[in-house]
Amino acid sequence: MSTEALSTDAFLGAVAFNADGVVPAVAQDARNGAVLMLAWMNRDTLKTTLETGDVTYWSRSRQAVWRKGETSGHTQKLVEAWIDCDGDTLLLKVEQTGPACHTGAPTCFFRKRSG
Amino acid sequence: MSTEALSTDAFLGAVAFNADGVVPAVAQDARNGAVLMLAWMNRDTLKTTLETGDVTYWSRSRQAVWRKGETSGHTQKLVEAWIDCDGDTLLLKVEQTGPACHTGAPTCFFRKRSG
Repeated sequence: MSTEALSTDAFLGAVAFNADGVVPAVAQDARNGAVLMLAWMNRDTLKTTLETGDVTYWSRSRQAVWRKGETSGHTQKLVEAWIDCDGDTLLLKVEQTGPACHTGAPTCFFRKRSG
Repeated sequence: MSTEALSTDAFLGAVAFNADGVVPAVAQDARNGAVLMLAWMNRDTLKTTLETGDVTYWSRSRQAVWRKGETSGHTQKLVEAWIDCDGDTLLLKVEQTGPACHTGAPTCFFRKRSG
């Protein structure tokens, strides 16, 4: 299977936002492949992300636009944006500045099931 | 930051299932780091996954247990299970047999925003 290339408009049109108008976005470190975090985007914040390259989520708890790193400085710069087969998940390859997690951990996934 | 190790019980107890009783799970190829897909688990299918190593989702559309590959043979064997800082996302490192996507693509993320 080859990769399909979508224009920004086609990409936006391919997204199946859920009943709350949001879609989950998985952020992956473009350098080392580490999965950093999962957060949510609405149409506006996805459009902002694609147009500016500054990864910008929608905070469901605060019901507010959340440009990653706007307070911490730990920004994410978009490298590649992918959408899955049924349009209900995004995969963002990013350049992460500093730790991705608010705890200070490099990624939000620092707890592992043992044994 | 070092990794925290959780027993299976502690891992299950750390999950913040949403109002529908499910949590998103990102499947990542343990061999090459490719993000394969995102699907959902409820408590029972997560427990089954952790106990058997056969990655088993909850199909929200069918409202049914979905052992990955049960019809296609394209199974996922659990290698590592991780949970994020606030307990609302899982990251599963898996050994994928065959393509992960029902379209036949190696991963569900084969559509990319161009330019």
